[in-house]
Amino acid sequence: MTNLTHKTKLLAEAAHRASIQMAMVGSVLKNKILQDVARTITKDWKKIKRANDRDLRFADTHNLSNAMKDRLMLNQPRLEKMAAAVSEVAQLSDPIGRVLKAWRRPNGLQISKVSVPLGTILIIYESRPNVTSECASLCLKSGNAVILRGGREAFFSNQAIAAIYQRSIAKYHLPKAAVTLVQTADRQVIDELLQLEGLINLVIPRGGEALIRRIAQKSRIPVIKHYKGVCHVYVDRDANLNQAFQIAFNAKCQRPGVCNAMETLLVHQGIAKQFLPKYAAMLREADCEMRGDQAVQRLIPGARAASESDWYAEYLDKILAIRVVKDADQAIEHIQKYGSAHTDAIVTQNKKTAEKFVANVDSSSVMVNVSTRFSDGNEYGFGAEIGISTDKIHARGPMGLEGLTSYKYVVKGNGQIRT
Amino acid sequence: MTNLTHKTKLLAEAAHRASIQMAMVGSVLKNKILQDVARTITKDWKKIKRANDRDLRFADTHNLSNAMKDRLMLNQPRLEKMAAAVSEVAQLSDPIGRVLKAWRRPNGLQISKVSVPLGTILIIYESRPNVTSECASLCLKSGNAVILRGGREAFFSNQAIAAIYQRSIAKYHLPKAAVTLVQTADRQVIDELLQLEGLINLVIPRGGEALIRRIAQKSRIPVIKHYKGVCHVYVDRDANLNQAFQIAFNAKCQRPGVCNAMETLLVHQGIAKQFLPKYAAMLREADCEMRGDQAVQRLIPGARAASESDWYAEYLDKILAIRVVKDADQAIEHIQKYGSAHTDAIVTQNKKTAEKFVANVDSSSVMVNVSTRFSDGNEYGFGAEIGISTDKIHARGPMGLEGLTSYKYVVKGNGQIRT
Repeated sequence: MTNLTHKTKLLAEAAHRASIQMAMVGSVLKNKILQDVARTITKDWKKIKRANDRDLRFADTHNLSNAMKDRLMLNQPRLEKMAAAVSEVAQLSDPIGRVLKAWRRPNGLQISKVSVPLGTILIIYESRPNVTSECASLCLKSGNAVILRGGREAFFSNQAIAAIYQRSIAKYHLPKAAVTLVQTADRQVIDELLQLEGLINLVIPRGGEALIRRIAQKSRIPVIKHYKGVCHVYVDRDANLNQAFQIAFNAKCQRPGVCNAMETLLVHQGIAKQFLPKYAAMLREADCEMRGDQAVQRLIPGARAASESDWYAEYLDKILAIRVVKDADQAIEHIQKYGSAHTDAIVTQNKKTAEKFVANVDSSSVMVNVSTRFSDGNEYGFGAEIGISTDKIHARGPMGLEGLTSYKYVVKGNGQIRT
Repeated sequence: MTNLTHKTKLLAEAAHRASIQMAMVGSVLKNKILQDVARTITKDWKKIKRANDRDLRFADTHNLSNAMKDRLMLNQPRLEKMAAAVSEVAQLSDPIGRVLKAWRRPNGLQISKVSVPLGTILIIYESRPNVTSECASLCLKSGNAVILRGGREAFFSNQAIAAIYQRSIAKYHLPKAAVTLVQTADRQVIDELLQLEGLINLVIPRGGEALIRRIAQKSRIPVIKHYKGVCHVYVDRDANLNQAFQIAFNAKCQRPGVCNAMETLLVHQGIAKQFLPKYAAMLREADCEMRGDQAVQRLIPGARAASESDWYAEYLDKILAIRVVKDADQAIEHIQKYGSAHTDAIVTQNKKTAEKFVANVDSSSVMVNVSTRFSDGNEYGFGAEIGISTDKIHARGPMGLEGLTSYKYVVKGNGQIRT
């Protein structure tokens, strides 16, 4: 065993032992710790800011992009928001110990299905130091231990934030290893962690597609993930056109760089002439490039021809692929073929068409007359989000506290034996 | 691409396409198909029996054990039972399309969480041809496609049973590939299937620990499994002794070869003298070997010394490891260390001790005053069981129709955009 392997295993074992203790902690105590964390973030914001400044100096000398630096940067208002988010998690109801179902069998057995924590969660993420606090607060609230592996660019910020969690946990005589931060420069530590299936119960990678694919490829532990968000809006023949303009514009342009932004617009042939020219003018105003099939190119002069690869593309940028379809069926087929099962929306006033779309589009979120941008844990009312899953196993869509739980069956009787 | 790789991919693609169609089928039609299958099994039992005879002849010439031959053998009563089980699945309520939750957000969004099928399930199993029908009926009812990979020893029986499903499915103009049987002698076909993560959504291996470990090691697709069942019964100081004798005897001896049979008995030191000698006499009567620590050896003359490996052992046989413990805490520690998170029971009249045991034993089923043998989908009232999971991701414990579902979020609005 190499030294790194040995150290990684010790760290995971400590987190695993902590998870057993954290699973037993009641709501009152968990919320006290979270409120203590929130208060400390507010009180010690300058300390965190100083750590963040060190990261920003590193960013300067390493020529990080302005976008990355903005994601990295913490200031008093942002730290106030971070503290408020922790406090909000404290106020959410406890996802652990809930009786999800209870029933009685004819032989007198009393069976109940009770929610329990998953155990130890490994989270691998990039740049935004907020993620450190978001994930630590959600894991703490759900009685799990968490191993956080942040990006090198947020080294000092992550350390400062994790230290606050650890101090608050220790203050209440609980194991600091419940929030473990892994900062070793050695990237191999991730590969080592991904082999520890007996000690770590779930891996959640948050970042670009390349990172997620690499993790999924190497992990022996279940991974919850979405590779990408190729989200569609389908404007049906029976759409309310005002809604269609608003939704299709918002889905593309409000924040093009996120996974729930629209990447492909599908338009019913019967409404294309009324819809596309005006919509194209809105997009042009917003500096958004358009690529389309021949019908689109006829209606939008200057639109580039879309190639097959455009239908699969997650641009995360001001680029939109547009296709005119024969009907809702063809829109559904298109989404089934090219979509990524993240979020897809229909704009229509026709209830039957909407129902068909909802039934046939097999995505984690299906929207009717709503912008795809609403596909988000906070917008769904989960209080916070630990990730988004496009898989079908365990959790799907925006994943909050409930996604961090499993269950056990508790069976009570009075001496029943099986015959 | 080799010929086998190509053929395997075609087969999985057909199953995947079938899964999209099957997801849309309503309850009435699914139940019609299942009742048609049940009727055909009853009507054509002789045909299945003839296929089974061919397998039994193969078993004879290949010197399969009598236990294996018994598991393999089908006759009219067993086939009647198989038909009845299919008919029962038809009568269960549909797990698909259920609104699991629905709520309204302040901005008017109507969000609902609706159950959907997983897609395509790959099941890899050994010997018992009943599994073919059990899994096909559960997957059909839950709107999933299934790829069945049975053992070579049940080749003709599995073929006859799968053919009945396929004919009933085709009769209602649905794709036969919804129940796909893979019988190629080439074992590499399994390895190929386990790489097709885009086409197959879940793998359930049913068989011995070696088979399951091999599958879990190689799979790129999520695997639901239990490696073994090292089930414990802890007889507490405050046990009702009559219940303790009954439960500890039933858990060990009623069917020692199954995963929910007891493998280790833990006895409180304060009750060991009253309990163990009489219990040992019961086990001796049943020809069950005993292995224990020194305290046990003092109370049960002739008991062999248990070694460290005995505490980890899943004997699946008439052998029992026995340990005297100081108290409930030591019993819990023992289970945390040596258990397999399958099923563990306490026998006690003390409610506080029972509560502590239930809270601290992190197994998929925790029993109070009940034999571990009840840990089973049928006994829990699930109608049928597709497997048992000791993992914490997705499903846990006995897994029925509900475990074969995922969900999607459906979000309805009237033009909401995000600001």
